[in-house]
Amino acid sequence: MDNRLYNFIGGAAGAWRVLKMATVSGAPLPEVARIEIIEGENDSAPENSVWRLRGVTSYERYVTRAEKDSLIAVQEGLNRPAATCAALIPIRKSAAWWELAQDERRAILETNSKHIAIGLKYLPAIARRLHHSRELGEEFDFLTWFEYAPEDAGAFDELVGTLRGTKEWNYVEREVDIRLVRAERL
Amino acid sequence: MDNRLYNFIGGAAGAWRVLKMATVSGAPLPEVARIEIIEGENDSAPENSVWRLRGVTSYERYVTRAEKDSLIAVQEGLNRPAATCAALIPIRKSAAWWELAQDERRAILETNSKHIAIGLKYLPAIARRLHHSRELGEEFDFLTWFEYAPEDAGAFDELVGTLRGTKEWNYVEREVDIRLVRAERL
Repeated sequence: MDNRLYNFIGGAAGAWRVLKMATVSGAPLPEVARIEIIEGENDSAPENSVWRLRGVTSYERYVTRAEKDSLIAVQEGLNRPAATCAALIPIRKSAAWWELAQDERRAILETNSKHIAIGLKYLPAIARRLHHSRELGEEFDFLTWFEYAPEDAGAFDELVGTLRGTKEWNYVEREVDIRLVRAERL
Repeated sequence: MDNRLYNFIGGAAGAWRVLKMATVSGAPLPEVARIEIIEGENDSAPENSVWRLRGVTSYERYVTRAEKDSLIAVQEGLNRPAATCAALIPIRKSAAWWELAQDERRAILETNSKHIAIGLKYLPAIARRLHHSRELGEEFDFLTWFEYAPEDAGAFDELVGTLRGTKEWNYVEREVDIRLVRAERL
């Protein structure tokens, strides 16, 4: 798995237009009209940017070989022409989560909460890329980016709703849910 | 577990004097006389510095609750007055390692290679702090810092020798072994 750094820049410009920003828990993020995604080290934020969230793709921390094979068999990549809807969901987990041992986190995430199995149910419709931010000293631990077609928006609501009802989500102390549509560049 | 960023700066100055730098595998690091450790974001490297390696402490990726409790029960912290010897061992693992699923990495690291159990055997003599560098886009994946008393130098050689003979080490593609002693500041 490559380690690629992505910058999600909220502001007045960008390839994705914000439809709605909802604070699910913890502190909100300032409202913005658009989000631009820039790959790689980039200290020069675009003009009129309001915030920048950074995350890096990395190896999987929880999936087993059997789960990984199931995911690979059905998942599709980002940038599908029909997937004109997107969501950016930054999350921060509590200190209690990070103090758990690996087997305890796995037990909560999958044995109890079925996080991986739930995500699998919505493939290939909902494509996803997870970015790790915690090691970068960012205010969130993870940034998940999702892409789907307009007709799958209901399925996406169901997916995030199901996850928010799990035991794992007791450890989520901050979550912002940003829905977007692909836009013409300004 | 806190996420603390540490800078290991090799050059002419620093609190630790280099006794020996050995390249175990892959490309060497330029020889330096001393290493300084600076905590936190720090873009102003000291004068005459030759290289800087950065890593962040993070949550444990493999230990179970039982293993974590065993480690906590016997381990001691850094900066013990008697621990005047240290080692900095930067490591990079292969793409094949990072492509493995979590259960496969755990099986190699502990079920087969006994990495955690081997480290436990040398506690509390050998104190250790692991830093993650991969997510920072660094040239190494991990920096491990060890501290021990001079009379435990033989035990430390035994520890690293044992680990280098394990299956896990088949996935180590670059490793530099730097031995140091605490020095008066220049």
